[in-house]
Amino acid sequence: MAKEGADMTEETQFMIDTNPGKEPEIVESSCEAKEMRAVVLAGFGGLNKLRVTKKAMPEPQEGEVKIRVKACGLNFLDLMVRQGSIDNPPKPPVVPGFECSGIVESVGENTAGFEIGDRVMAFVNYNAWAEVVCTPADFVYKMPEEMSFAEAAAFSLNFVAAYMMLFEVANLREGMSVLVHSAGGGVGQAVAQLCSTVPNVTVFGIASCSKHAAIRDSVTHIFDRNVDYMQEVKKISPEGVDIVLDCLCGENTGKGLTLLRPLGTYILYGASNMVTGETKSFFSFAKSWWQVEKVNPIKLYEENKVIAGFSLLNLLFKHGKCSLVKSVMDKLLCLFEQKKIKPVVDSLWALEEVKEAMQRIHDRGNVGKLILDVEKSPTPLMASDSTETSEAGEEEEEPEGDNDSKERMPFIH
Amino acid sequence: MAKEGADMTEETQFMIDTNPGKEPEIVESSCEAKEMRAVVLAGFGGLNKLRVTKKAMPEPQEGEVKIRVKACGLNFLDLMVRQGSIDNPPKPPVVPGFECSGIVESVGENTAGFEIGDRVMAFVNYNAWAEVVCTPADFVYKMPEEMSFAEAAAFSLNFVAAYMMLFEVANLREGMSVLVHSAGGGVGQAVAQLCSTVPNVTVFGIASCSKHAAIRDSVTHIFDRNVDYMQEVKKISPEGVDIVLDCLCGENTGKGLTLLRPLGTYILYGASNMVTGETKSFFSFAKSWWQVEKVNPIKLYEENKVIAGFSLLNLLFKHGKCSLVKSVMDKLLCLFEQKKIKPVVDSLWALEEVKEAMQRIHDRGNVGKLILDVEKSPTPLMASDSTETSEAGEEEEEPEGDNDSKERMPFIH
Repeated sequence: MAKEGADMTEETQFMIDTNPGKEPEIVESSCEAKEMRAVVLAGFGGLNKLRVTKKAMPEPQEGEVKIRVKACGLNFLDLMVRQGSIDNPPKPPVVPGFECSGIVESVGENTAGFEIGDRVMAFVNYNAWAEVVCTPADFVYKMPEEMSFAEAAAFSLNFVAAYMMLFEVANLREGMSVLVHSAGGGVGQAVAQLCSTVPNVTVFGIASCSKHAAIRDSVTHIFDRNVDYMQEVKKISPEGVDIVLDCLCGENTGKGLTLLRPLGTYILYGASNMVTGETKSFFSFAKSWWQVEKVNPIKLYEENKVIAGFSLLNLLFKHGKCSLVKSVMDKLLCLFEQKKIKPVVDSLWALEEVKEAMQRIHDRGNVGKLILDVEKSPTPLMASDSTETSEAGEEEEEPEGDNDSKERMPFIH
Repeated sequence: MAKEGADMTEETQFMIDTNPGKEPEIVESSCEAKEMRAVVLAGFGGLNKLRVTKKAMPEPQEGEVKIRVKACGLNFLDLMVRQGSIDNPPKPPVVPGFECSGIVESVGENTAGFEIGDRVMAFVNYNAWAEVVCTPADFVYKMPEEMSFAEAAAFSLNFVAAYMMLFEVANLREGMSVLVHSAGGGVGQAVAQLCSTVPNVTVFGIASCSKHAAIRDSVTHIFDRNVDYMQEVKKISPEGVDIVLDCLCGENTGKGLTLLRPLGTYILYGASNMVTGETKSFFSFAKSWWQVEKVNPIKLYEENKVIAGFSLLNLLFKHGKCSLVKSVMDKLLCLFEQKKIKPVVDSLWALEEVKEAMQRIHDRGNVGKLILDVEKSPTPLMASDSTETSEAGEEEEEPEGDNDSKERMPFIH
């Protein structure tokens, strides 16, 4: 990752200013020269921990590409990062965000294949929600001409995850059936589209009732997330389903395993059930952990079933599988160019609107992907705005949940 | 399954003879007309529970094929059946055996594709170890001309299981690595051969030292089953392996999962560790059950791993996947005809030698498959023979383990 001028956020600069032993001159001069806007998570907690602030601009190290960011993807995982509800969370302050699209501004050594001006999309191990990002060239992919920046930021994580789960972990083939939770979300919509590239695949989608009208055409059957979906699926397919894709965890793990047909595969790729409120709830966390069925392999043997876990970010940033991901991306870009798949963008938000965007994901209001559009100006608020920016002050302990009554309307589709 | 004339084994006939209410005349007349030799398991327990006896010959029902059996496969699972160490064991007396080869002797209605005289191999839900077997046509496959009956009986279960685990459950591809326990056994040798059909696959085989010379050429690396194989594998491949095939269970499950690379698949396909002596040991059973790691799906998520169970017999006889198995068999027969795979026969045994054959599997003495050759005469014993046949008496409570000093030599390779 790019070294960011000794973490020169305004916060750290302030600390340095009050600490004469730390040579503030150097910091000040480099900050003057190269600054950028970024969303910073000051600490784990509620929406009030997020603010837009100025940070020192990163420069690319060897093997890295520097990208002038146009759009960033917002994922449910970003909420869990904000709450600190993930394994090994980074030490705040941190710039969240794992994916972006933009234009190559400069390149480090050994980044063959990339040139200044290239339109690219990229995975980033944090730091995506900023005007400029540096990330290893292994995580950068050239965008097709027909793809917009918003589409590109909605493409990488969702489609790569959906593709790898369906075709690498499971083995989706003609005539199979797939059950997908959060069918209206970014991954859910990618799963539905990819399933339609294989003949005669039945997709059981589970989503909030409010999304049914919007996504009904993308799936074969749709169920309300509040009904007993096991009964509904069994009415239609008494034998169960071939693939279950679960981003909820908790009690859905046991249900998913039960619904599998012989040789079927259950894949856990998220744990959004662990998020019940604005801040981390140890009760929800413990409940999800407790409810998730520990699986006895001997039972899998008797039932001929497969259970898998899939985390694309771990695969990329911990497990070093970037060349495999690259090959998957190549296949996906072919499908895009053949117009067989197309990312669904729910809405575009300015960096300053990140709190409202997060609240929308939390409330399961989105159909498709939420995008942070770096060049977008905030839509005027309906009520008085207390959104924190670096200019607006440095209060860390703002009471949580005070944004409930404020809403930016309308968001842009 | 074929109805076998009201279970007219000699045992039941004896019972009937002493029970005048059960119309013995009918039984006697049909026994006179059509009898066959079969291995019968009188009850769960040691080797003394097995005997060769006369049974009424089955006749094919609708959809069934009647096969004059030439050779039967003997699997580790048959030991577990004998001990009663399986889930839902059948009620004895029962004729063991799940696979055979032979010649079609007659066919029931709706068995299109099969004619009298066809050379076939077949799966049977018990009852294979007999001179005649009836089984649904869905489980019967025509043999290639170049395949011997012994090879056919060594082919079906081992190669179908190995193929489905490598290519249906896991997704074996060029450059991957596979760890297989019991590499010298029937499935182990099938796995090794199938891996050699994919470029650049590394096979780590684990086997008893005594088999190393015989199987060294079939695998890339070979380890003694008594050494710390995790250390040895990690020395060669610090990242671990892509596929682990485990028929042992117990502590090997946890080790196998630990050895997996990201996106790797652990497959449990047997639990031979539950067998430690001649009869079922509740201690071994409980120990294996206890040692086998219950898997938390959240851990699989963090580690990008897959865990699966595979039971071909359940797939066929409980889960109704015979058309999928048929398509796999077609692919395997192509590979056989291209001389890319060839079943390894360890030794041939007469039906009357089933105890010695079972002891050989129990002692892990075999390289490849043990075959019961229905037309073979027993090899004279080295010591006095107390092998039970129906002629030799009806003692049920013969002390166990009394066959240790007796050995038929040599068995035929």
